[in-house]
Amino acid sequence: MSSTIGDNVRLTLFGQSHAPAVGMTLEGLPAGETVDMAALAAFLKRRAPGQNALSTPRREADEPEFLCGLVNGVTCGTPVTAIIRNTDTRPGDYDSLKVVPRPGHADYTAQVKFGGAQDAAGGGHFSGRLTAPLCVAGGICKQLLEKEGVVILSRIAAVAGIEDEGALTASTAEKAFPTVSDERGEAMQAAILAAKAEGDSVGGIVECAVIGLPAGVGDPIFDGMENRVARMIFGIPAVKGLEFGDGFALAAMRGSESNDPFCVREGRVETVTNRCGGILGGITDGMPLTFRVAFKPTPSIAKSQQSVDLETLRPVALRVPGRHDPCVVPRAVPCVEAAAALAVYDALLERRKA
Amino acid sequence: MSSTIGDNVRLTLFGQSHAPAVGMTLEGLPAGETVDMAALAAFLKRRAPGQNALSTPRREADEPEFLCGLVNGVTCGTPVTAIIRNTDTRPGDYDSLKVVPRPGHADYTAQVKFGGAQDAAGGGHFSGRLTAPLCVAGGICKQLLEKEGVVILSRIAAVAGIEDEGALTASTAEKAFPTVSDERGEAMQAAILAAKAEGDSVGGIVECAVIGLPAGVGDPIFDGMENRVARMIFGIPAVKGLEFGDGFALAAMRGSESNDPFCVREGRVETVTNRCGGILGGITDGMPLTFRVAFKPTPSIAKSQQSVDLETLRPVALRVPGRHDPCVVPRAVPCVEAAAALAVYDALLERRKA
Amino acid sequence: MSSTIGDNVRLTLFGQSHAPAVGMTLEGLPAGETVDMAALAAFLKRRAPGQNALSTPRREADEPEFLCGLVNGVTCGTPVTAIIRNTDTRPGDYDSLKVVPRPGHADYTAQVKFGGAQDAAGGGHFSGRLTAPLCVAGGICKQLLEKEGVVILSRIAAVAGIEDEGALTASTAEKAFPTVSDERGEAMQAAILAAKAEGDSVGGIVECAVIGLPAGVGDPIFDGMENRVARMIFGIPAVKGLEFGDGFALAAMRGSESNDPFCVREGRVETVTNRCGGILGGITDGMPLTFRVAFKPTPSIAKSQQSVDLETLRPVALRVPGRHDPCVVPRAVPCVEAAAALAVYDALLERRKA
Amino acid sequence: MSSTIGDNVRLTLFGQSHAPAVGMTLEGLPAGETVDMAALAAFLKRRAPGQNALSTPRREADEPEFLCGLVNGVTCGTPVTAIIRNTDTRPGDYDSLKVVPRPGHADYTAQVKFGGAQDAAGGGHFSGRLTAPLCVAGGICKQLLEKEGVVILSRIAAVAGIEDEGALTASTAEKAFPTVSDERGEAMQAAILAAKAEGDSVGGIVECAVIGLPAGVGDPIFDGMENRVARMIFGIPAVKGLEFGDGFALAAMRGSESNDPFCVREGRVETVTNRCGGILGGITDGMPLTFRVAFKPTPSIAKSQQSVDLETLRPVALRVPGRHDPCVVPRAVPCVEAAAALAVYDALLERRKA
Repeated sequence: MSSTIGDNVRLTLFGQSHAPAVGMTLEGLPAGETVDMAALAAFLKRRAPGQNALSTPRREADEPEFLCGLVNGVTCGTPVTAIIRNTDTRPGDYDSLKVVPRPGHADYTAQVKFGGAQDAAGGGHFSGRLTAPLCVAGGICKQLLEKEGVVILSRIAAVAGIEDEGALTASTAEKAFPTVSDERGEAMQAAILAAKAEGDSVGGIVECAVIGLPAGVGDPIFDGMENRVARMIFGIPAVKGLEFGDGFALAAMRGSESNDPFCVREGRVETVTNRCGGILGGITDGMPLTFRVAFKPTPSIAKSQQSVDLETLRPVALRVPGRHDPCVVPRAVPCVEAAAALAVYDALLERRKA
Repeated sequence: MSSTIGDNVRLTLFGQSHAPAVGMTLEGLPAGETVDMAALAAFLKRRAPGQNALSTPRREADEPEFLCGLVNGVTCGTPVTAIIRNTDTRPGDYDSLKVVPRPGHADYTAQVKFGGAQDAAGGGHFSGRLTAPLCVAGGICKQLLEKEGVVILSRIAAVAGIEDEGALTASTAEKAFPTVSDERGEAMQAAILAAKAEGDSVGGIVECAVIGLPAGVGDPIFDGMENRVARMIFGIPAVKGLEFGDGFALAAMRGSESNDPFCVREGRVETVTNRCGGILGGITDGMPLTFRVAFKPTPSIAKSQQSVDLETLRPVALRVPGRHDPCVVPRAVPCVEAAAALAVYDALLERRKA
Repeated sequence: MSSTIGDNVRLTLFGQSHAPAVGMTLEGLPAGETVDMAALAAFLKRRAPGQNALSTPRREADEPEFLCGLVNGVTCGTPVTAIIRNTDTRPGDYDSLKVVPRPGHADYTAQVKFGGAQDAAGGGHFSGRLTAPLCVAGGICKQLLEKEGVVILSRIAAVAGIEDEGALTASTAEKAFPTVSDERGEAMQAAILAAKAEGDSVGGIVECAVIGLPAGVGDPIFDGMENRVARMIFGIPAVKGLEFGDGFALAAMRGSESNDPFCVREGRVETVTNRCGGILGGITDGMPLTFRVAFKPTPSIAKSQQSVDLETLRPVALRVPGRHDPCVVPRAVPCVEAAAALAVYDALLERRKA
Repeated sequence: MSSTIGDNVRLTLFGQSHAPAVGMTLEGLPAGETVDMAALAAFLKRRAPGQNALSTPRREADEPEFLCGLVNGVTCGTPVTAIIRNTDTRPGDYDSLKVVPRPGHADYTAQVKFGGAQDAAGGGHFSGRLTAPLCVAGGICKQLLEKEGVVILSRIAAVAGIEDEGALTASTAEKAFPTVSDERGEAMQAAILAAKAEGDSVGGIVECAVIGLPAGVGDPIFDGMENRVARMIFGIPAVKGLEFGDGFALAAMRGSESNDPFCVREGRVETVTNRCGGILGGITDGMPLTFRVAFKPTPSIAKSQQSVDLETLRPVALRVPGRHDPCVVPRAVPCVEAAAALAVYDALLERRKA
């Protein structure tokens, strides 16, 4: 079932962009865990729209209302449900798009799948707005992981072909534009604004590292850490690629280069390099679990595009009105962390049973 | 549960490399479907070892014995189970490796996860040998898809950094080395043999295209076609990256370039380009579903590598004995097709309910 | 995961008795189906409290707010979420019960399971209040079944040992006390009031019949109709027994008596009797699917009971304050229908795939 | 998916009565657990046919062959698969039954569901033969439970309306006919033989008690112990009713009678009575988990019965040839234990995560 995921911590996302609310239910959280609401709000703010020129001017308070599962901010062991009201909706923006699907969006495929009954407004259930409750759920799991010494870092690794510099070793969460190199970050921002000025958009890459995971987490074959992270990450709109460790670059290496030699550091088995991204046979080896996620450019652009009138089958030149991010990558960074937190925490609970 | 996958057609893989057998159970197949055993055997042969200098000299008949689920070769509606006996096993090969994990393998992570109780021989349940029953299951689904006009093509897109040329528009299954360009294929084979001669190995990329899928297959958020294919594909050992359509290259494009314009061809809505890999919002748009899979080099190499004695924590120089492929990519090609067939067929059945 | 159920239509229940809200998410409904809100409200009213002397004086509007999944009352193909605010809550009623568990309730077992973090107020997630969103979900499925000619009937078969008379062949939903025999119904009501007057409570049996199901619905072994109905029905609080067709009475029969002979009526294969409850091998045979559900007496009684102080381990005489039904059976009738509707509709969708 | 069950220990049953084999895969068992093969064989022998005049003369060695998941009899952490070859098959026995369904069997419903492609021989996948691999799986879980101090007892509580006497407090597994009262057991056996002599069959009731479970096992709403046991138990052919604790009798009690008062014994919270069967709110309370299972009479009887020719729709008088038990209850006793062990062990593992 497409909007539910997880074996031990099970997440259900619900809502549409212009429905009364979006929200999430998270089952399986241990009882007695305090959720730090201020930290959660700070995490959600990283994803929130309307913060600067790089993102959509649509403003949403994005404050989750917790309906159940918490008693005085502490998990009570039964499902946690939180909703976020959609306050700043303008369904009228989308009326003209019903028969003329936007290129790069789910308009056409949803039309075929749901036979016209889909909620087309703002992308409906396919909207990036669903990442708000994803971040609520992931933000909670991220806190629970931190209590166990597991930290999730991320950064913008590239935008518009411009790559960040330096290694991801510390949090970039405090930065308005989360790159390691501020200089590169400024170049990326300039590229985003240049695209925006032309009514266009750009894509990019987010890098993520999960640090502090013990060895032995993950399961063989279809529930390896790669499988778990992949199924979660591809739940974020606009993701088209995913690689672990050195990923696609490994395909051009020799085994003598790609294999990470084992060593002992401070009495602990580690690997000299970490080309495998901390995962061998789907199971963590105790090194940082690292991966990179490719985002396509925002499909909504002001430039004229070729589409088709689905009723007459005639070509139509389309400009996408509405308020959109010229690049989803900056706001996608916490979404990637949230997805990682959910996948990793689910795997950690799985391990506890054994 | 790590060895089970699928909502409508559910696959369970079982077995270890040197156990009495490996096998699979496939539930949910419609009743009354004939399995073409000769076609299945031909498909399995593409994965079988011992066929040429490029692969391990280990020979296995690899003939599945169907224990149930078929009556005179026709599905009877209840679980299909097939097993493949492990005949040419040499457990002794692996005894010395128990305390000295092989770099790039699951030896160390399995040791931590299972506390030493894992079946270490030949990689146990983590062995590439488990792709034999995967191909049995996928081979059956591939046949069922073909009856509905859905065809799965694949090719070696790169090995050792050498890229294939030309577009994937027809089957390469008849070729001993399945590239579009024979010349490039020969260069790749030379690179494999060169690595082998040095006791080394190489990686590569497999490209796959699912052709003939109707629009409207796949589900939002966590069961989109990307999620479904990803969770399945990362079940193949040595996969470290996956991208759909133009994948990582999309991250460097502008929206006006990456969006696939809609058009009408022969009265049918299509897209002019197919950079999205036939998937919008997780749902097929009727164009070929395309993706590329990065395989790391075979971790078993004859060259000396640095490992650690897990009992003494002292460094050990290790050479991996045994019989191994210097490159897993050629034999991985049908595995990728099998995984794709399973993911796609499961999504097709999901759609039938709606 | 305990609060989620279903393969094709997946229900998640959330909420606690005295949390801000209870609610449900229903995934997998076909797109384009109109929900008759007036019919749904009428169905929910049958479960609502505060209607007469037989039920708790606690009054709740019990009006679901649909947050998503419907556009103008029509399913849009993505998850439907509805919440019901808890307005008439009095958490103070339950404060004194925290260390002294009520016999027959989940107070003690929840205390052990959740280590004291559970929401004890009003039974928390274990409250009968969770049957409100169950009825929202089941009420929707009931409507969808009716469109396919499947009708669900039910009645109070017994209360306090007094049995109803006559066969269940028509709806009793219009009746304030849903028995076939009004005379027997009056006797049952008198028994309920007599128990109430003594500060006591009574149990009873609900009978349900699903009529109009085609043959061939249900799946072998663990997803037979009995399994599906059972897992759903035992989700209603206070259920302690379940039997299909003649159920326990079959155990005392001979095969020549219990086997339902086949016959042909109006060109259709039927059975002469229906002792098997319309289910053979877990699969419907086209006759009414019938079952009976045993409810224990309401555990909350005003009479003094023996409990234990969990801190001092000393015996305590306990009277349960608060507002409670002297018999849950009348309000449980639509809950049984809702559970049946969910189980049956899920099985129907499963069949569509084949 | 109908032949798979379990969240933490996942069981898949496969096979048909007259296919090459039946078998099971069990995923999720902890690594490093020794399986006592002699104890398992003794357990399986209790279910095996051909032991006396009460059961079918069909003889099967019923010895499972373990294909994987065990290394020298110790679980290695990955799926355990065992198969049992069907050696003494006589498919010819069933040929004439294809168009004339046997009353009380799944012949007709399978015909409708699978459109004639089903394996009709011996009931195919619906055969009681599938309880052999169920007992393999359950027998293993039973051993693992015993290591944790959890013991499963059972007995024949009734056959042909004759009830056993005395309480179920010790194992009856050593007895050829497992009742508490040998006298009552003899009366039951006489009733079985009397029915057999008339070409008829009888039903009965099995009682089961799970002793030694800690309080706090089980989950709210749909994964309570009742739900878990129910979904498993109804997977045994011929089961038509299930009740926990005093079950249906509770429906005729008052709350002051049905509520189990809490008390302290030897410093431990217990209940004075155990009418709730050790389950409150779906969660164990530390008292024995008790339930009773109603089995209908064996549907295969030699007496003439009324059926229908599915091709001509004409009535047919049918006698069921073949070799059948005149009462399934004696052989069902270990099956009930196996089902209980699987359900309980799965719930125990769930609890470990919290």
